[in-house]
Amino acid sequence: MAFIDSDRLRSLLDGINRFGFNPETGGYNRPGYSDADMAVREWFAGTMQAEGLTVRQDGVANLFGRFGPVDSPCIMAGSHLDTVPEGGAFDGALGVAVALECVLAIRDAGLEPRVAIEVVATAEEEGRFGGMLGSQSITGSVTRKWLSQATDAEGIRLIDAMARVGLDAWDALAAKRNDVLAFIELHVEQGPVLQHRSVPLGIAHSVSGVCNLRVVLKGEANHSGTTPMELRADAFAGLATFGSVIPKIIAAHGDKDTRVTVGKADLRPNFIHTIAGEAEFIVNIRDTSADRLDTLEAAIRSEIAAAARANKLEAGITRHSRIAPVKLDAELANLLREEAHALGLATLSMPSGAGHDAQTMQAICPSALIFVPSRDGISHSPQEWTDWSYIKKGAELMLAALVRFSMDRFVST
Amino acid sequence: MAFIDSDRLRSLLDGINRFGFNPETGGYNRPGYSDADMAVREWFAGTMQAEGLTVRQDGVANLFGRFGPVDSPCIMAGSHLDTVPEGGAFDGALGVAVALECVLAIRDAGLEPRVAIEVVATAEEEGRFGGMLGSQSITGSVTRKWLSQATDAEGIRLIDAMARVGLDAWDALAAKRNDVLAFIELHVEQGPVLQHRSVPLGIAHSVSGVCNLRVVLKGEANHSGTTPMELRADAFAGLATFGSVIPKIIAAHGDKDTRVTVGKADLRPNFIHTIAGEAEFIVNIRDTSADRLDTLEAAIRSEIAAAARANKLEAGITRHSRIAPVKLDAELANLLREEAHALGLATLSMPSGAGHDAQTMQAICPSALIFVPSRDGISHSPQEWTDWSYIKKGAELMLAALVRFSMDRFVST
Repeated sequence: MAFIDSDRLRSLLDGINRFGFNPETGGYNRPGYSDADMAVREWFAGTMQAEGLTVRQDGVANLFGRFGPVDSPCIMAGSHLDTVPEGGAFDGALGVAVALECVLAIRDAGLEPRVAIEVVATAEEEGRFGGMLGSQSITGSVTRKWLSQATDAEGIRLIDAMARVGLDAWDALAAKRNDVLAFIELHVEQGPVLQHRSVPLGIAHSVSGVCNLRVVLKGEANHSGTTPMELRADAFAGLATFGSVIPKIIAAHGDKDTRVTVGKADLRPNFIHTIAGEAEFIVNIRDTSADRLDTLEAAIRSEIAAAARANKLEAGITRHSRIAPVKLDAELANLLREEAHALGLATLSMPSGAGHDAQTMQAICPSALIFVPSRDGISHSPQEWTDWSYIKKGAELMLAALVRFSMDRFVST
Repeated sequence: MAFIDSDRLRSLLDGINRFGFNPETGGYNRPGYSDADMAVREWFAGTMQAEGLTVRQDGVANLFGRFGPVDSPCIMAGSHLDTVPEGGAFDGALGVAVALECVLAIRDAGLEPRVAIEVVATAEEEGRFGGMLGSQSITGSVTRKWLSQATDAEGIRLIDAMARVGLDAWDALAAKRNDVLAFIELHVEQGPVLQHRSVPLGIAHSVSGVCNLRVVLKGEANHSGTTPMELRADAFAGLATFGSVIPKIIAAHGDKDTRVTVGKADLRPNFIHTIAGEAEFIVNIRDTSADRLDTLEAAIRSEIAAAARANKLEAGITRHSRIAPVKLDAELANLLREEAHALGLATLSMPSGAGHDAQTMQAICPSALIFVPSRDGISHSPQEWTDWSYIKKGAELMLAALVRFSMDRFVST
């Protein structure tokens, strides 16, 4: 019987988090292909090697640690090692540490998997360059065009950032894997639902799609004292008119997993005494259904146009980006629920509102996403926290699943 | 009979606008106590002197050019020479040029005023240091405390800015005038009403008061994908909820001269994928009635509190500033209307939504404000424009008023 060693798991996580720590903020800084990101990969490769795993790094710095038969297909488990700037201790790193701890627990129990288990530490998941380069390379969904054009927020080209650390971006095209039977990722929820519902573990049924609309409302930037209300073309009024009907749009066209957010909005010229001549904002629309995402987008475009007309504004709406929703494998999720039930662990079937490697991996194999609760839903922040009691439960579920799938049952299905 | 010489008037305005012009933007830059501001005053003093006026500059750089009896009280006419950064060619400068042109027209007609006319070019009207130091010094409403504390947006102290150009800020306390019978200011409307109503001249009955409320709505900055709508404390939603009820607040508590504007609003952290944890904005409330201003402020505070409650936000509301409305002299406005009627010029009785020296001067003498139309209501911009046909009409009204008031009738009332 295999057991999670919480102390060893904690040491693994601490080991990862020695890289990129900023003592002034308490935040972790391992952006994709930064020195800290490459250093943590070197350390983690060495750690896996020392534990007897067969380690390989592919052309985009995805790191694989293999345990079990040399030539079999594999069950893959893991997450990413890169972070957002000033990120938290758990996002990505926890899933990598848990995967390795599970393999070590299986090894220590003397179990011999029929199919190999590979611990994966993916590269560039946080989208410094706008994608999920690591998992997209594994699934063969990276294009030449994207590789040649991708830049980060500071205009640094992906090609140059990779070359700086000795990598050739074109190797992304040769990183595709055809031998992965299933992928299981454990990740912090990054939301408040599990805490709110007092459930220790979540199993994602899907990953929400995202549609970002970039909107510019143009009016006239006149003096707030000399321009009567009826002669205004006030871009703020247009923004507020639209913003106030978002709940009605969701009630009419969405469901409980629908999320519509205006998190970024800028008025111009943004002076106390000047009517806003321009309001630029992003409408972030998320849903687990592609059809609903389309319906919501259409309804939102129509409400923005109505708000513009009502306030004598011109509205420019462009689709800034769209990522389709992904249904994760239902059978794999069911098997996880069975294992959780056997362990006496309650789980919640829920959507993932954030993007994860699992949604990319689903393109080549059944993929699953286990959530552990995020305290107060906080993530991408030094305040990110998950209680160790929940982490242990999540790791136990991962361990049970890896034992079951690598020993027989999943392979035989 | 005295006549406006349009060419001379234009030369005077052009003369003023040789100072502080930025050829790259087309804007004028004569902030109070800048080199350009002091240089234009020196030039304008020389110009008035060359035309035979008795010129005096007071301790805060208000410039007076006197025409008529040496010891009589005076009728004062003029406006300011300072500009906002990248301001237009007409704001302030036009009123100064028109006042001098009227005096020259009276002189050239051989008329001898019974009371003196003083052309005034006030200092620091645009509020670089947060007040209207020039006219406030003339009316004796500057305090020691304000002088010692006033700073500009860059933190430069008024005292230091004045010392740099050889002025002693404390002289503001000795600049009070007790000999002004009336003050008449011609100014560009800086709003769209005259153009919209097709009336060439406005006569202000009052200057709106202004109350600025600084509002901070605090919620929680969570992930837009992982946080369900019902678990959010979305500061943008609070801002939009409040913004959308502004028309109802005005309908319930305001009148046609009421203006409520949110021109400055900032979300934090202002990221596409993050629910706004904070919204900070200014509500700019203007009305010609002090009572209505108070009622509107109370209603707005109440609606902001309701929007905060509905979105689980904390609302902090502080009164950032309040300037009381000013009723300009009704009799003087009537006399101006009589003169306009005699000249065949249509006028519109209207509030001034922007602040002007006339509102300060009303504290010591009957004061009047003549507006000429601003094309498309644009001001504080290189695009500021007033047609010369309207300027001529405004100057003719100013001339008629100065002839009448300085010769007999106003003095005798």
